[in-house]
Amino acid sequence: MRKQILVINDDGITSKGIKALVEAVKDLGDIHVVAPDSPQSGMGHAVTIGDILKISHHDFSIDGVSAHSTSGTPVDCVKLAIYKILDKKPDLLISGINHGSNSSINVIYSGTMSAAVEGAVESIPSIGFSLLDHHPDADFSVSKKVARDISQEVLEKGLPKGVCLNVNIPKVDEKDFKGIKVCRQSAGYWKDDFEERVAPNKETYFWLKGEFTNPDKGEDTDEFALSNGFASVVPTQFDLTAHHFISDLNTWDLNSEK
Amino acid sequence: MRKQILVINDDGITSKGIKALVEAVKDLGDIHVVAPDSPQSGMGHAVTIGDILKISHHDFSIDGVSAHSTSGTPVDCVKLAIYKILDKKPDLLISGINHGSNSSINVIYSGTMSAAVEGAVESIPSIGFSLLDHHPDADFSVSKKVARDISQEVLEKGLPKGVCLNVNIPKVDEKDFKGIKVCRQSAGYWKDDFEERVAPNKETYFWLKGEFTNPDKGEDTDEFALSNGFASVVPTQFDLTAHHFISDLNTWDLNSEK
Repeated sequence: MRKQILVINDDGITSKGIKALVEAVKDLGDIHVVAPDSPQSGMGHAVTIGDILKISHHDFSIDGVSAHSTSGTPVDCVKLAIYKILDKKPDLLISGINHGSNSSINVIYSGTMSAAVEGAVESIPSIGFSLLDHHPDADFSVSKKVARDISQEVLEKGLPKGVCLNVNIPKVDEKDFKGIKVCRQSAGYWKDDFEERVAPNKETYFWLKGEFTNPDKGEDTDEFALSNGFASVVPTQFDLTAHHFISDLNTWDLNSEK
Repeated sequence: MRKQILVINDDGITSKGIKALVEAVKDLGDIHVVAPDSPQSGMGHAVTIGDILKISHHDFSIDGVSAHSTSGTPVDCVKLAIYKILDKKPDLLISGINHGSNSSINVIYSGTMSAAVEGAVESIPSIGFSLLDHHPDADFSVSKKVARDISQEVLEKGLPKGVCLNVNIPKVDEKDFKGIKVCRQSAGYWKDDFEERVAPNKETYFWLKGEFTNPDKGEDTDEFALSNGFASVVPTQFDLTAHHFISDLNTWDLNSEK
């Protein structure tokens, strides 16, 4: 029985990255693409509640690939694929290949990774892939090898309940690529700023412009791996409980008025 | 020096819940409201990249409260407040009171909680409050007491780096309210479905309709506390690394082609 592989992204169904991902894995199973009809970067885990969604057939121009675009977010695409488009849950969900990094804190803003997390919520082995290059015509040759290797491993071994993988690939030539490293999410963050402009009607408006900062120099982090020519693999979960703080919090007097 | 308290939500600046939250804490410090100009439920950690944002003064009609609405998401509101509206980072960020639950898996879809998580990323002690009642005219009297007690504790004690609190309040009368319990996030999920309809132009469209399912019967979970009349407090973090799976993953052969 051929494996069923669901492919999602957040850059939109016409991006180069999703085509690269399909090419990388197309002989591993039957490919079903369900992706947003327009770019949805930075959508995080947004889901469309209280508004309508549309689905359209899409000609993906790779033989044997079934493809649909939707008017929704990456997470909407996962839900629509599972509950409306596919006959049964796929054996693997892969998301990307994103044009731009989803390492470190970027995981929480990322539509690419939210699709993978949503897959894990649905108990589907799921992986998000991102290349550290925003260019629409970025070179995905290293990324395709990484995506294929890791997809194959996950198809064979599965993933534990509640865990998906966040894979980032450095922007390097094949000859400078060092391999794949298992990492933890580094404690980086964005130092944000807003550029202020004035509209023709004299109204003021703002553009977000941030600078990524990483004070976490741990050699077990994704940022360290990436800056040394390795692809990073961070096992990622949706149980957000800070278990280490529960016992301390239990010593607080939280019922002062009772 | 008076404490500076930033108040955010995802139901929009005119909702009853944010007014209740301001009333609950207004004597604990100077209150700055920065909230979306329209409802943003289910926006998760969405952030506006590549589009403009606007800020407007808002008359909150409670004395001494400074208030701004923005065209952005809850996370945009946090960034705009910190980097554009306030002179310095606040001593406390509180988000809500949300009309509807953000317990269990809902934390990942929630704009209310994403604002609190964004506060934690910015190293601000942050709390999200949600009442298990979607009604626009819900009764926030129990919620206000809970929000005040916990805000006061956090103002005194702070929170560890990388941790915020996810507080949910049951829909009960004051006489049936049992108190506050520290919990872990229960492993519930949504069994989703889509209702299919046909537009006047004969196009098919879809509405998401899900049913929350909780197979996790742990007595240390938020769902257990809430169904027994307690408010739940889950310490919540943005390090999504599944640390327990790192050693297993290191045994995989992830570099097969090297």
